[in-house]
Amino acid sequence: MHEVDVRAGLLEPNAAVARENRALLATRGVYAANLMSAPGSGKTSLLEHVIPALESRHRVGVVEGDMTGRADADRLEGFGVPVHQVNTGAACHLDARMVHHALHDLADAGCDVVLIENVGNLVCPAEFDLGEDDAVMLLSVAEGSDKPKKYPLMFRRASLVIVNKLDLLDRTDFDLAAAVAAMRDVHPGVGILTVSCRTGEGIEEIAAWLEARIAAKGAGPRAAAGTGVRG
Amino acid sequence: MHEVDVRAGLLEPNAAVARENRALLATRGVYAANLMSAPGSGKTSLLEHVIPALESRHRVGVVEGDMTGRADADRLEGFGVPVHQVNTGAACHLDARMVHHALHDLADAGCDVVLIENVGNLVCPAEFDLGEDDAVMLLSVAEGSDKPKKYPLMFRRASLVIVNKLDLLDRTDFDLAAAVAAMRDVHPGVGILTVSCRTGEGIEEIAAWLEARIAAKGAGPRAAAGTGVRG
Repeated sequence: MHEVDVRAGLLEPNAAVARENRALLATRGVYAANLMSAPGSGKTSLLEHVIPALESRHRVGVVEGDMTGRADADRLEGFGVPVHQVNTGAACHLDARMVHHALHDLADAGCDVVLIENVGNLVCPAEFDLGEDDAVMLLSVAEGSDKPKKYPLMFRRASLVIVNKLDLLDRTDFDLAAAVAAMRDVHPGVGILTVSCRTGEGIEEIAAWLEARIAAKGAGPRAAAGTGVRG
Repeated sequence: MHEVDVRAGLLEPNAAVARENRALLATRGVYAANLMSAPGSGKTSLLEHVIPALESRHRVGVVEGDMTGRADADRLEGFGVPVHQVNTGAACHLDARMVHHALHDLADAGCDVVLIENVGNLVCPAEFDLGEDDAVMLLSVAEGSDKPKKYPLMFRRASLVIVNKLDLLDRTDFDLAAAVAAMRDVHPGVGILTVSCRTGEGIEEIAAWLEARIAAKGAGPRAAAGTGVRG
């Protein structure tokens, strides 16, 4: 299959840049999460809840990955956080190089937390390490509880799976217990939280999960560093 | 950007096999539709409605594309139609080569209509012609009405966009008029139909659309050809 050669040719140089990104984040004391999901699972809506939940203690920055346009960036700039739009063109995922300058700039702007919203895609983003601390994925109740078995790579990659649109549980066939069992089957030990971005239920737990991860890394709030040097 | 070279290297050989597939379908009088959508938009559920709606007049065959497993194939085999499972491994889309033998086999089995369910992905499958007569895409109401602007390639490729999960309209922010306007903006003249696979509303119109396309091609029911020779 040609796919193997193509991926190897892309993944090796990506891994090198991902290592640079990880070193940059460590040096500058920045925590970064890579948010991934299918299109329309609620990544931007989650950010609209999580940013206010974190901003009293952290300077949050956002990297928005989209094939085209800046609709999500425009939504989030209303929250007063620095947002970097990355347009991937025909590419179906962010890669480490695409986010490299954004990570530099957000660190220079004094951010200690960077939330990266990947392109909506349950397949390819799973293979491209961005150098982030945590891969966090969303699964919408409307997508069905069979997804962990059908897209196992993404569920294996994620530190945390957030089951979103819990408010639609009564109107879909989604089997939460079966979904959780399937997630634990493909990825034993994966974190699983449920949320409704429509009602706000579950946001506190997600913010607490992120706070624990930020604290574990030793990242913390800092003043904006106008003198920051881009390395 | 490396992406350009990679895609060109994959798309040219794909186009050659897609031409072979298209010639095969024409020679054998088979109509084929390529169903694409994000994960969990309802492709398999749609097939569960459309197969019974077509089977009195047609011999329908199915090609099921999934990264792994055969859960959807198992669901559809209950309908008594021949189903070919294609597992793509880490690949995020079907390509023309992957479906080539399945198209041969289904033509040999006397099918005059082949419905291909692609891997759930709103990005990459749009670039890989399978040799099908129509690209048909689904958009679930739960995914949001901003998708045509964010994933324009897929909407441009589709002959028909099916807006599914209409039963969730009252529980989401989906703006149907805005979605239709955005679809017509990125693809003037695209066919648009709405459906609820949960209630069955709209299935007749989709079956009628397919019937018209099948008739336009001159495909039609035939007896199973046990003597079919694989070319």
